[in-house]
Parts: sequence; structure tokens; C-alpha cells
Amino acid sequence: MGDLDNFFYPKSVAVIGASNKFGKVGNALMHNLKMFKGKVFPVNLNENKVLGIKAYKSVLDIKKNIDLGVIAIPEKGVYSVLEECGKKEIKNVIIITAGFGETGNNEGQNRLIQISKKYNIRILGPNNFGNVNPYIDLDTSFSKLTPEKGNIALISQSGALWVYISQLSLGQFGFSIFSSLGNMIDVDFADIIEYLNNDKNTKVIVCYIETLKDGKKFMDICRKSKKPIIAIKAGATQAGQKAALSHTGSLAGEIEIYKAAFKQCGVHLVETVEDAFDKAQFLVNQNLKGNKTVIITNGGGLGVLCADYCAKNNLDVVKLPDSLIRHLDLSHNWSRNNPIDLVGDADHTKYKEIFLKLEENHFFDNVIIILSQQEMIDVYKVSKEIVNFRKRSKKNVVCCLVGIGENIDRAKKLLKENGILSYFEPERCAKVLKTI
Amino acid sequence: MGDLDNFFYPKSVAVIGASNKFGKVGNALMHNLKMFKGKVFPVNLNENKVLGIKAYKSVLDIKKNIDLGVIAIPEKGVYSVLEECGKKEIKNVIIITAGFGETGNNEGQNRLIQISKKYNIRILGPNNFGNVNPYIDLDTSFSKLTPEKGNIALISQSGALWVYISQLSLGQFGFSIFSSLGNMIDVDFADIIEYLNNDKNTKVIVCYIETLKDGKKFMDICRKSKKPIIAIKAGATQAGQKAALSHTGSLAGEIEIYKAAFKQCGVHLVETVEDAFDKAQFLVNQNLKGNKTVIITNGGGLGVLCADYCAKNNLDVVKLPDSLIRHLDLSHNWSRNNPIDLVGDADHTKYKEIFLKLEENHFFDNVIIILSQQEMIDVYKVSKEIVNFRKRSKKNVVCCLVGIGENIDRAKKLLKENGILSYFEPERCAKVLKTI
Repeated sequence: MGDLDNFFYPKSVAVIGASNKFGKVGNALMHNLKMFKGKVFPVNLNENKVLGIKAYKSVLDIKKNIDLGVIAIPEKGVYSVLEECGKKEIKNVIIITAGFGETGNNEGQNRLIQISKKYNIRILGPNNFGNVNPYIDLDTSFSKLTPEKGNIALISQSGALWVYISQLSLGQFGFSIFSSLGNMIDVDFADIIEYLNNDKNTKVIVCYIETLKDGKKFMDICRKSKKPIIAIKAGATQAGQKAALSHTGSLAGEIEIYKAAFKQCGVHLVETVEDAFDKAQFLVNQNLKGNKTVIITNGGGLGVLCADYCAKNNLDVVKLPDSLIRHLDLSHNWSRNNPIDLVGDADHTKYKEIFLKLEENHFFDNVIIILSQQEMIDVYKVSKEIVNFRKRSKKNVVCCLVGIGENIDRAKKLLKENGILSYFEPERCAKVLKTI
Repeated sequence: MGDLDNFFYPKSVAVIGASNKFGKVGNALMHNLKMFKGKVFPVNLNENKVLGIKAYKSVLDIKKNIDLGVIAIPEKGVYSVLEECGKKEIKNVIIITAGFGETGNNEGQNRLIQISKKYNIRILGPNNFGNVNPYIDLDTSFSKLTPEKGNIALISQSGALWVYISQLSLGQFGFSIFSSLGNMIDVDFADIIEYLNNDKNTKVIVCYIETLKDGKKFMDICRKSKKPIIAIKAGATQAGQKAALSHTGSLAGEIEIYKAAFKQCGVHLVETVEDAFDKAQFLVNQNLKGNKTVIITNGGGLGVLCADYCAKNNLDVVKLPDSLIRHLDLSHNWSRNNPIDLVGDADHTKYKEIFLKLEENHFFDNVIIILSQQEMIDVYKVSKEIVNFRKRSKKNVVCCLVGIGENIDRAKKLLKENGILSYFEPERCAKVLKTI
């Protein structure tokens, strides 16, 4: 089968169904492609120009080479324009048009499969919601929101989740590829995961999965993936499975089977969309190495809660070495235990001292640092020590910053710039560090 | 034993350890009491005035009646000033001073107990972090942040959590009482819960619990409570129990025992602080009546995820009656199932139609409405229909609003004003509706 590269890095796109009429999908598409760094060819039977760009009656009328076709016309017309794409030797086509397998039109869906095989066309869709590469301003969705540049690849089986995630990400994190699959008559999760192995902008892959058509292929490719993969599996319960059946027409399958399979092939299965992107952001900058976790806190109660959350996420709140306990006893009023509770009066110099002492030992993989804003502490100064500690120690670090105001905002910014995540909620620190 | 009323509704407060020195607890206390609607009497051996208010050498020098004493002087002096409070017939005393049981000074702690018994004084603390009643601007904490007015009572065993929750609540929700317990040598959870039965501002009670000294008393009083009680139990895991042991010096106990006990006495046990206040805000305006839940969505994938979250929270994604299915078949392209997936093209009139049809039936307790912002839908108009539906049907309603911009903001505001919570994250809708 052909290459997927032109779905994500095309130099020229034909929009079949491009329209001047506001409210039409083909109009929204043209707007979203205004900034595209390649060439756009609108195709419309009745218009000479679309948004000021010369329009063609058919892709066959276009003289130039077309890397990617995007079809957004009513279902009845899709078959013949797909044939035309074949004749024009367009090898990658996204079919936005809905009304195929998902509404019971299996005959129509089979016709699409036959045409694509005849011409050796790779298909994303039908019922595809959109495909974005922010690095070249490619956006074949009809959404108002275009996600920003970053290092996370999204592969979503649902348009609603596509929109949800684009809104969740606003000002928070960015994407290398932001794609939806639709009915998956051809390109599926495994194909894109395999493709992304060689995509230089992608560091982590997030999949929203309702159903896998070929579990073995998915597992084989995940096992070989060079990039960490995070999965949100919808239909994880009987109620969810029933809902997925109405939604995509395919049975979601038992979650226990998925759980075991994901574990075997090294996929991180998470509970919620937020969990997925917390972990994805973490994995862009850090690696999960192990479960041994040290908690440092300046608020006892938050340390206790965090220890609970660690245990719930299979993290080992590890015993401290005697030498470390003896050292800290010399100068601190502290908990003498992990969580290392500094009892509210520690300033940044005490944090630095503890960090230096921790580095001498190698009994831990992760450090969670809980900083509650208090009179006697400059959280920004501590955050500088945290950044230095991470640089020197190469250990995983996640922070819980409890407070408001400019000092906390500066601390958060500094941490983020240095690849360290900080949350208000201690449970998120533990979830992020959970291993497979 | 005496009444607790003067902890929460005193008319006069003596601040023992009131100070002009910035950075001292007694200085922060005086600042936090500036707006107090009653009378404040600073007590300080060396000052004639504190923050411009006449100061006294001892509470015994004050002629007027004192409802509440607040002690914030070093540990050594606490015993004699507590004796003086007894002689002055102050029946309610908050001891902010730390350095008693929590640091192993059990002898000192026992002395406090003896003095309080001798004079029949009720004690909050020692090692108390603060006690706030926003309705009379009483704030005996040394925190920078004073929580706002509302209908949730907080009882926290941890100062760090007290600060955390005050920050979490900013602009989001308010409190009737915002109190910490400290070492609980006298007043404990059960005492305050019992007291709050007759507090007109309190509609829901949230407890952050590390340890209960008298489980039977707690259960008896919770069982009789007229107000719903939500508990965050720290030390829910072995790691957390070990951490709690270092923090408060008492063993937290097995979570399974707590779980069973809470269930028996009707206490909502939640996993996180955010869950606690989501549920508290819900219970201020609505009641949990049952598990039968209808999901209405305009985005398929979000409906599937939400059905999963419902199942995980023991909510029954209930079968729709045949009459309802037949009715909706007449005019809609929809999922023919619960979640009721309106497939993106439903406007507010379709929502209204569905609401009217739902009201005719009584097969459900809760409705979760997922609204993903799309071209063809005015979310604000739908929110008006949601408010009307809730008023007419008296069913529980929670919304998941996915989108950004002015229209969504107006919808959220309208819903909130009418006691309906809306979240971005569908899992929060399901968690809020979870019954005991």
C-alpha cells in the first residue's frame, strides 16, 4: 500500500466541494486552509472562484500534481469524484463526507473500498473529522479552532473528542499531528503509529480508541514503536460498550482484554482525557523509569494525601536511607520519613540542601515536590533549585504548587520552560508518574 | 460540656499574643480580624496599643465580657494564659500555638486538658490553623486568604489542606464555616457536625479526616445529621497511613473499615479534594435521589466516555422506554439508545422537545447533558431550556459544556445561577451524581 506522508506533509491539496457559501463544510475547509504553506486547488462544479482562488470543475482539470484530495460533498457524489481522484493519480484522499458504515450504508462503504483498491489510493475516513499538521498550517477540519504546534500526536476515532481536545489544549500544549480516523475503511491507528516513528516533530502519541479492527496488528506496531503511546479506551464498561455500539456500529470489546493487551505491548492506558494529556506532556520531556518515589512537602496533610495517591497509582513511597535521615536530622525539624515533611518553615536553601543530599543516593526514580505558598517561603526561588536539581540528577520531577499570585506564576513558568510539570492537584502528580 | 456557638458566632474576641510586629502570627491575626463585626481585644504584655486598638496585659484586665479567646503565644506561656481565660470565664478558646502532642509534648497537652476541664472551657486546638465565619467576618487564621460566604462548612484536620481549599475555592464557591481542628484535645469532627445541624447558613459539610479519635461517636452523629456530609479520608493506603503517622502521631486505620463505616452512617467518601467540593456544590442545590441516569449528548464520543464514567461510579445508564424511542424516531436522526446522541445537528428546540418528552416519564433520577459547541447550536439557548426543564421536572441535572467564548460563558453563568453545575470534563458529571 502507498505511503501516508501526503496526509500529513502534502505540498498541494485539492478541496472537492470547496464552497463560497458560509455554513457549508467546504467553505469552512477553505477558510482553515488559508494559511496552508502549500498550494490549494478548490474543486466546485458551479463556481469559477472560491474565496478568490481559481476553482476547477474536476480534479482532472488541474494540470499540477495533487498530493492530497479532501472530499466534502454529499454521499451520492463521492464515488465518482473518488474515481476521478484515482485517474488523476492522487494517492491520498481524506473523505469528510458522512453517511456510510456509521449509518448502516455498508454497501456505499464497500464501494469506496473497491475504488480505493482499484487505484491504490490510501483513504482517511469516510466520516473523517479532520487532519491537522500545525507545522505546515494544514487543517482539513471544519472546526473553528486549530491546535498549536508541539510534540504530541493525536489520533482520535471521534470528532467530538477531536473538538474537546483542541479546546482542552488551548494555551496549554501543542501537537505535531492532530488527526481523526472516521470509519477507518483503510488507514487505522496502527498505520499512523507506524508512520509517526519517523516523524521528527512527534515525541508522544495519544490515541482515543473506541474499537480496534485488527488487535494483533495494533499490538505488533505498538511493541515496535519508538515513541511512547498513551490510550484512552472508550467503551471500557458495559454501559460504554453499548453506547459505542450505537455510535460507531462496532462492538468495543472487553476492557480486561484491552488492559492485558495494552500492558503487553507497552501502551499506557489512562482513565480520562486529562490524564492522557498530563502524561503526554510529561513524556515529551521526561521518561518513566521506575516506581520508587520520594515526596517532599511543606504541608503535612498534602503529603499524606499524595502518599495515598502514589499508592493508588502503584508508586512505591520508598523508605529513606539511614544516612539521609541522619543528615537531615542535624538541621531540620522534619517528618523523619517519606513524605519528607519540612513543616512549613523551610526556605529555598533547605530545599537545595535536601536536593544535594538526595543526589548522592540512588534509591529513587521520581520526586514529587509539594510547595504550599507560605509567608516564609519564596516559591520562585525554590523552583530555581528544582530546575537545577533535575538538570543535575536526571531524575523525574513533578511539582504540586499550591498558591496564587505573581510569585507562583513565575515559578510555574520557569518549571514549564525546563520541562517540569506543575499542578495544583497532588493526585495529578501521582497519575503522571504511574508506569505501565 | 459547654456550647460551641461562640467559636463561630462570638460577639467579642480576645487575641492573646496580638502584636504590632509584621511576620508574627499575632500580627496576622489582628489584620484578619480588622473587618470582624464584633469587638476585638488585643492582649499583649508589652504594648499599649496593637494596630491602633487599646491593648491589655491580661484578659483579666478587660472589663467587658469575652466570648472567644484566641491564643497565639509561645508554648511555655499558654498554660498560664489559659488559666486566666478560665478565671475570666471565657468558655471558648482557640489555641493556635503548636508544639504539643504533634511534636511529642504529651505532658503539655495533658496540662491543657486539665486546665480546660477545671474551668469548663471548650478548646479548638492546640496547633489550630484557624477558624473562619465569613458571615460575620470572623477570621482567626494567619492566612492571607479569607474564604467567601456560601453554604458549605469545612472541617479540616490539616492546616495545609485549609490553605489548599481556600485557594481552590477562589471565585468558585463559598463557605458558612471554614474551620480547622488542630490536635483535637476537645472539640472534634462530631462536635462540630452536631453543632452545624442548627446553623442556618450550612447546607453541606465537608470533612478532611486523617484520624477519628472516637469512631462510634462520629458515626452516631453523622447518622443523625440533617445535612449531607462529605469526607476526604487521608491515609487511605498503607503509604498514606505511614505518612499520617509522622504527621499527626496517630494511626489512620484501615480504609476498608472507614469505607464500611461511612457507608453505614451515610457519609459520602470521595477520592480527592476536588471531588469533595464538586459534590458539595451539587448538594447545596440538589439532592442525590437514585442511580438511574440519562445522558443526552451532541457528540458521540463524549457520550461513550460519559457512559463509562457513569458505570465506574455505579450509575445506571438506564434503558429508555419504548414510547420515548418511538417518539424521538419521528423527528430525529439519533442513537436510539441511552446515551441519547443527537448527532451534532440538534438545536435548542430539539432539546426542548426531548426534555418535555422525558418529563412525561419517571424512569430516571438524573440527566447529564453534554453540549459540544458547534456551528448549528446556540449553547446559551439550550441552557435556558435546561433551566426550565430542571424547574419543571425536579430531576437532578448536571452539564458538560465543551467550548469557549462568550456564548458558553453566558450559558455557564445562567446554569450556575440556577443551581446547575457545568464542567468541561465529563467524568466530573458522573462523580458528582455518585450515591453513597
